[in-house]
Amino acid sequence: MIKKIDHIAIVVENIDEEIKKYQEILGLSFSGTEVVADQKVKTALFDIGDLHIELLEPLGDDSPVSNFLTKRGGGIHHIAYEVDDIHEQLKILRADQVSILSEKPTRGRNDSLVVFLHPKAFSNVLIELVEKLK
Amino acid sequence: MIKKIDHIAIVVENIDEEIKKYQEILGLSFSGTEVVADQKVKTALFDIGDLHIELLEPLGDDSPVSNFLTKRGGGIHHIAYEVDDIHEQLKILRADQVSILSEKPTRGRNDSLVVFLHPKAFSNVLIELVEKLK
Repeated sequence: MIKKIDHIAIVVENIDEEIKKYQEILGLSFSGTEVVADQKVKTALFDIGDLHIELLEPLGDDSPVSNFLTKRGGGIHHIAYEVDDIHEQLKILRADQVSILSEKPTRGRNDSLVVFLHPKAFSNVLIELVEKLK
Repeated sequence: MIKKIDHIAIVVENIDEEIKKYQEILGLSFSGTEVVADQKVKTALFDIGDLHIELLEPLGDDSPVSNFLTKRGGGIHHIAYEVDDIHEQLKILRADQVSILSEKPTRGRNDSLVVFLHPKAFSNVLIELVEKLK
């Protein structure tokens, strides 16, 4: 079952400039940056209520989000929903013939399991499911 | 000051099909549809935590979201942040030279004032600000 929205991810060209704007113009609460080497992205998190805005800057042309940046010049990339039990949710999705972008959940940030649903399944919205393991 | 995210808006081609998917596959709590005649859209709201997913189907080619549907085939359209005082927020934005898409806030759904910021100001993310009047 979906519990809540975990984060909204936004691809940006220059994360340092964007962090400044989110802090100084929008006044959102900044909680830090991280380089996720195997995804080739630098991330910045902002807390708002019980969810996050996650900015993503691709580090190199082979980053999974560099194509999105090249094609769109940045923008909202995906919505991540937190679920109780990702394997249970995947069963429901498979029964409804929703395409999943990976065979199995993979390890995400902060001890989590994550999976992405094919954007064609939900009107071109890329949906991530996240199960927190602790 | 930004208080919270009010909603995430998603443009879809067929709102009835999409409502079914959000209810039956994702299991989100559906709170009804509305036709907003002057915006030429049909909307469907889902509650998740203290925010909403808002689906938008354009009603006719002159709807403000029909171009987005034609160009992108649907997708995440904007993020709406609730603010305490929209006029105060606009002063801050103007001082920072952020382009605003309308001269003044306009009336939104459920007794609110709304304004949109130019997507170029935030890496192609269209941001709506909402002040609830009651």
